[in-house]
Amino acid sequence: MRYEEAGVHIEAKAKALEGAKAAIAATYTKEVLRGLGAFGGLFDAQVLKGMEHPVLVATTDGVGTKTLLALEAKDVSGLGFDLVNHSVNDLLCQGARPLFFLDYLAASRLEEGVLAALLTSLAEACRAHGIPLLGGETAEMPGVYREGAWDIAGTLVGVVERKAILGPERVREGDVLLGLPSSGPHTNGYSLIRKVVAGQDLFAPIPELGESLKEALLRPHRAYLEEFRLLQEAGVEIHAIAHITGGGLPENLPRALPEGLGAEVVRGSWPIPPIFPYLQRLGGIPEEEMYRVFNMGLGLILILPEGEAEKALDLVEGYRVGRVVAGAGVRLV
Amino acid sequence: MRYEEAGVHIEAKAKALEGAKAAIAATYTKEVLRGLGAFGGLFDAQVLKGMEHPVLVATTDGVGTKTLLALEAKDVSGLGFDLVNHSVNDLLCQGARPLFFLDYLAASRLEEGVLAALLTSLAEACRAHGIPLLGGETAEMPGVYREGAWDIAGTLVGVVERKAILGPERVREGDVLLGLPSSGPHTNGYSLIRKVVAGQDLFAPIPELGESLKEALLRPHRAYLEEFRLLQEAGVEIHAIAHITGGGLPENLPRALPEGLGAEVVRGSWPIPPIFPYLQRLGGIPEEEMYRVFNMGLGLILILPEGEAEKALDLVEGYRVGRVVAGAGVRLV
Repeated sequence: MRYEEAGVHIEAKAKALEGAKAAIAATYTKEVLRGLGAFGGLFDAQVLKGMEHPVLVATTDGVGTKTLLALEAKDVSGLGFDLVNHSVNDLLCQGARPLFFLDYLAASRLEEGVLAALLTSLAEACRAHGIPLLGGETAEMPGVYREGAWDIAGTLVGVVERKAILGPERVREGDVLLGLPSSGPHTNGYSLIRKVVAGQDLFAPIPELGESLKEALLRPHRAYLEEFRLLQEAGVEIHAIAHITGGGLPENLPRALPEGLGAEVVRGSWPIPPIFPYLQRLGGIPEEEMYRVFNMGLGLILILPEGEAEKALDLVEGYRVGRVVAGAGVRLV
Repeated sequence: MRYEEAGVHIEAKAKALEGAKAAIAATYTKEVLRGLGAFGGLFDAQVLKGMEHPVLVATTDGVGTKTLLALEAKDVSGLGFDLVNHSVNDLLCQGARPLFFLDYLAASRLEEGVLAALLTSLAEACRAHGIPLLGGETAEMPGVYREGAWDIAGTLVGVVERKAILGPERVREGDVLLGLPSSGPHTNGYSLIRKVVAGQDLFAPIPELGESLKEALLRPHRAYLEEFRLLQEAGVEIHAIAHITGGGLPENLPRALPEGLGAEVVRGSWPIPPIFPYLQRLGGIPEEEMYRVFNMGLGLILILPEGEAEKALDLVEGYRVGRVVAGAGVRLV
């Protein structure tokens, strides 16, 4: 018996890596001392010595079952952006800027075409933010994954000055919640979405949406790094940031709030993208469940002092969606 | 329709995280400013300011299909050690020491018992090396994973002084290859192993092995961090290190060698653990294939000057297994 007979295809992996090599190398900055092929990636951290008190920030994420919808629609080109952008937003919640990214790709069978497309998508998403794709792992596991299924996850490491760390400690009663628009469901709720749209034509334009399901559902997770940089450069004071992912507003807003403070969110204070009411009607999903599973049009919530809200809205597109109040949890009013 | 009906069990995940919370918190060092529950983990990097020229090192790994064998044997308690130790060795290849770890766990269904056991195993493995488990992601994806299957991956970030980075650049013709014993197949070749042992009793003692298949095959990947520290403290000069993982000696040794140099490895110069000939015979696996898939008893190869080899062997258990020679690739003689 040989390894290949156990269902592991070493050649396809090598070929796909070869094909994506240029895209990966294009993400390298001068800080990358050793990348692809090394036992570990090397990133020159001399810049940290120039900081007052550097704090490393790290987050690991996946894109959930959005992969399955992408595979069904035969277009995985957005999944790298989903993963990298999701991670970038998680770092923003601490006020951190990204340093480097590593990916983890696994599948029942490493189809060369899909693997190359995924790696290229990841590399392009990294490059769009100036983040080196420092390393990663690609694994073929026929007994673990369903036939044709893929999983894609990754880790983003960044840095922030200790005194600039955002978070619950800074938040005060009366602070404004400023919602930044999402591009759709981002990477959350896709197990539910797939149940709801099962059997539907993904490619036909839907008048209510002004686009096809494929377009509405595969649009990548939006990153808010540019908006954050704009606000920082303009000196806008931000207290905390909540990334609205799985669990929606009710579960993610409290992660940015201290003990004793809650949030009041005003329904109707921001436009809800048509994909959400469409999914709700098609799936007969209760209203509360919609808010608990989806971002409902708000990808990131900035929490800032009243006086800073107008300054921020002059610089970035967003909506006043509520306030920090005494109490706990999130109340939708 | 609700999220739970789409096969996603939020409660089991929350309960298992709650159960493993103490074990995870026990890994925290004073550097951990924010861990479990934050959008990103925060690690105080002030220590890097005291370094001459800090270089961050990062590696992402999985444990492959060893998970399936562990699930079959109803014992996942070693998998965290497999993952963390594998990653620690990858950092050693650069001469780096670990700073923090993040995990990624995914399954068809987040069974509370398995999830808690995996998280506890990861936390214990981290604590054994003094590495904080800074964050992670746990995902339930019924459509991606096979019923009952799990995947476990993670990212380790470490640091090394730029002038202390090990690697191919340091290696010279005539350098000695010093092999450190593995504890078994570690985390490689398990797709093949599972085919070979399919139908065998995992629990019965096997005279030839002196233990059961479960014991021989689930023994965790060995980490060589302590050995490395001993050698460093004694001032033993090491040029490069190769971690013998998937692809065995023929594929991993060259990763530690420069252009123009190859390796000559002498068969019989180290003891091969009985599990390897056992698998070879049971599976009818060609000899060359054995060396291409398995570590064959050598988990790590230190490459060092002739004069340092004896000093090293006084401090750690290992074997002279060959030499660096002119040429390319690995020649087994």
